[in-house]
Amino acid sequence: MGGGDAWEPVQRVRTYEQVMHQIEQRILDGKLRAGDKLPSERDLSASLGISRASLREALRVLEALGIIEIRSGAGPEGGAVLVDSPGDGFVNLLKLQLALAHFDQNDVLETRVALETWSCWEAAYRANEADFTELAAILDRMDDDSITAAEFNTLDAAFHVRIADATGNALIAHMMGSLRTAIQRRMVDVYATLADWRETAKTVRSEHREILRALIDRDGDRAASLVRFHITSFYTNNNLGGLLT
Amino acid sequence: MGGGDAWEPVQRVRTYEQVMHQIEQRILDGKLRAGDKLPSERDLSASLGISRASLREALRVLEALGIIEIRSGAGPEGGAVLVDSPGDGFVNLLKLQLALAHFDQNDVLETRVALETWSCWEAAYRANEADFTELAAILDRMDDDSITAAEFNTLDAAFHVRIADATGNALIAHMMGSLRTAIQRRMVDVYATLADWRETAKTVRSEHREILRALIDRDGDRAASLVRFHITSFYTNNNLGGLLT
Repeated sequence: MGGGDAWEPVQRVRTYEQVMHQIEQRILDGKLRAGDKLPSERDLSASLGISRASLREALRVLEALGIIEIRSGAGPEGGAVLVDSPGDGFVNLLKLQLALAHFDQNDVLETRVALETWSCWEAAYRANEADFTELAAILDRMDDDSITAAEFNTLDAAFHVRIADATGNALIAHMMGSLRTAIQRRMVDVYATLADWRETAKTVRSEHREILRALIDRDGDRAASLVRFHITSFYTNNNLGGLLT
Repeated sequence: MGGGDAWEPVQRVRTYEQVMHQIEQRILDGKLRAGDKLPSERDLSASLGISRASLREALRVLEALGIIEIRSGAGPEGGAVLVDSPGDGFVNLLKLQLALAHFDQNDVLETRVALETWSCWEAAYRANEADFTELAAILDRMDDDSITAAEFNTLDAAFHVRIADATGNALIAHMMGSLRTAIQRRMVDVYATLADWRETAKTVRSEHREILRALIDRDGDRAASLVRFHITSFYTNNNLGGLLT
């Protein structure tokens, strides 16, 4: 706004940022798409007029963001390929942001509530019979008393993310899955501190069954309020405030 | 689950992933925190037993994720510092994921609805007078008929993110801000295609005033349903389906 004649600080643009920008532009222009292979390091560094070391830094960034997959080997199998579905970039980022306390456990809890109440609400209208069958199958596996706390936690996360999948929204499902993965190790640690995690598991199981019942009944209001209670009471009852961040 | 005797595919772990993991572990152990400077490239590469080129790749990844800031220059001013607030990592990631169609415009629209209905609901209870004053100030600036479409769009995003800020949830505010930044250039392009963007601006302005009124009235239900309508009708009325992805 205002003062169009003001000096502006010079922005230093990194080489890898320019490479990322050019790749993004080519994707937007339809010249590159998911599944395509980037030119070889030698050709690409020559075309971009940068050193191979600089190019490799840019490729590492794209790999860490889950945008390209770098396959080893010379010949047609090797090289950098644009991937067609979101990878671990968001998880890598979130783990570090949580470790640095950019966000705290209550922020994560509330973000789960925001995404999961929306998901339950919408899944109640959008889910089909195949979704309900898969959700029930996950809950059946959680009823197996021989599984470990870590396996129980993995299935727990799968149930929640599967509800988001049933809405058809890939971004919300990806965010939910990434949030769960980012806090997973600590969730398992938390289960380990419980006097008897199998008691907690009983509550989790019965609440999951109620949520699935509400989805099958196409009652979005009830499903949303059940999941809100399920998430917040798990944190409160198990006093996870300090443990999850 | 099951078959504990099955072979498992060998995971190739990249050097930069190991470096990131060690940094994350040190942060979790309280040995490193936001504001701290990492050792010099020479010392750190020696301690980690890797080449400086490999270390530099890891540092570029952390920089692109917005976890460290690399300041140039030798001496005490230079070096890699752990940043204390989330940077552009999520925006960089989202832009590329949207370009590659990992997510589509409807996914983004619905994610905004999920995060913003939650934010309006909570802001109605949590916001204070200072928040309302700042929100009103943004709307006053949007009333200025001399601003450009790009300036209007920036203020529009600021209003929405400021509501999330008023909830105190840094993660939701950061996600909302990042989503808006990732689609901003295209939003401005969309405004440019409108026959008269100032007509659309009138609707946006009056809907914003209604949302602020509901927040001040501490009516979370009304604020949430107003923002839901505001977001979805903007996309529908302006036929943004094809334009925003």
